[in-house]
Amino acid sequence: MPAIIDHDARRVELAAIAAELIAERGVEAATVRAIAEAAGASTKVVSHYLADKRALMLATYRSAAESSAAMAGAAANSADVAAHLASLLPVGPQMVRNWRVWLAFWAFAISDAVFAAEQGGQVTRARRTIETVMMRDPRFAGLAEGMRETAARELITLVIGIAVQAAFDPAEWPLEAQLGPIAERLAALDLAARTGDKAGAGSTLQGQPTESRRE
Amino acid sequence: MPAIIDHDARRVELAAIAAELIAERGVEAATVRAIAEAAGASTKVVSHYLADKRALMLATYRSAAESSAAMAGAAANSADVAAHLASLLPVGPQMVRNWRVWLAFWAFAISDAVFAAEQGGQVTRARRTIETVMMRDPRFAGLAEGMRETAARELITLVIGIAVQAAFDPAEWPLEAQLGPIAERLAALDLAARTGDKAGAGSTLQGQPTESRRE
Repeated sequence: MPAIIDHDARRVELAAIAAELIAERGVEAATVRAIAEAAGASTKVVSHYLADKRALMLATYRSAAESSAAMAGAAANSADVAAHLASLLPVGPQMVRNWRVWLAFWAFAISDAVFAAEQGGQVTRARRTIETVMMRDPRFAGLAEGMRETAARELITLVIGIAVQAAFDPAEWPLEAQLGPIAERLAALDLAARTGDKAGAGSTLQGQPTESRRE
Repeated sequence: MPAIIDHDARRVELAAIAAELIAERGVEAATVRAIAEAAGASTKVVSHYLADKRALMLATYRSAAESSAAMAGAAANSADVAAHLASLLPVGPQMVRNWRVWLAFWAFAISDAVFAAEQGGQVTRARRTIETVMMRDPRFAGLAEGMRETAARELITLVIGIAVQAAFDPAEWPLEAQLGPIAERLAALDLAARTGDKAGAGSTLQGQPTESRRE
């Protein structure tokens, strides 16, 4: 009688092992043989689940996204934007690993429309989650919808920009350095929410602060 | 009598061709054979200059960095921060190509200390150039040094965050969308420079705008 195998669980397990290999030793190191060894499985089994480099990259990308969603889970369900954004940054081994996997994936996404759409979709989802948490956070609940959208876009842009730099220059980007620009932006938005500054935190939309300040 | 060959020029030429292949069709497509074909050279010549994948990635990365420096040259020597930052964004075929090459390089840099240092160094240089242009730009010459440093760090962070998103979702990130967050940030800094707001554009450094506003 054949063993009952949970195929989805197996796929998830192999993808996590492959993600670990990519983050630790790079894409080239995540060979079928290396994954099989690390998983204690046969190369035949690994090849079944991760048929080629493309399937491998997509599976590890999603593995990192699921890991990140799980990490952010509590923060995303809370009403604390700062805590939620902190959970997205490459702080701690799990999120450092996830960002490395995404950076590896991007190399393939530059010339693969399906991968690019996967990445675009993930950023859009992340942005919408930020908006949702903003609506729940008493500090930002007062922001106008358009401003909340703009703010979420800017915040996810900061997260990506910080994460990319931190990935390659961790000494320059300890926790406080990563959180700093985000805390500053949130403080400005907080101020805007309380003063009803529709243009957002003392800034303007068109770069002409005195002449065309919006009301 | 052997032909006189300018080895540096040859290396630069082959790296540019390889960068083109990577940006168009991905890292896997930039084989010695494909580069040789595109260059009208023998595979032996290509192998001489680009001995392995590592040499190839480093050469194409530097090729993109030089291309970008050349593109930014005029803007970097000017006194216009906005124009300089615009020249760094993936707008136009040449800068879209350069960003794709960098994204490809990052996949190798996650597990290669030399590559990571190369990337870190490039970001540091870009940040310092922004600071230099800020000092020349009449709009920002009045900013305190510490604030200029912080601003340059935030601006390069925005550039990276925008470029990564634009690379995979160009429809969402036309020119105006890429320039928008940067123009807003510059307008806030402009205001801060003129009003002498040391904390920077209505924001604070610690996320507590009312209690601990810096003077």
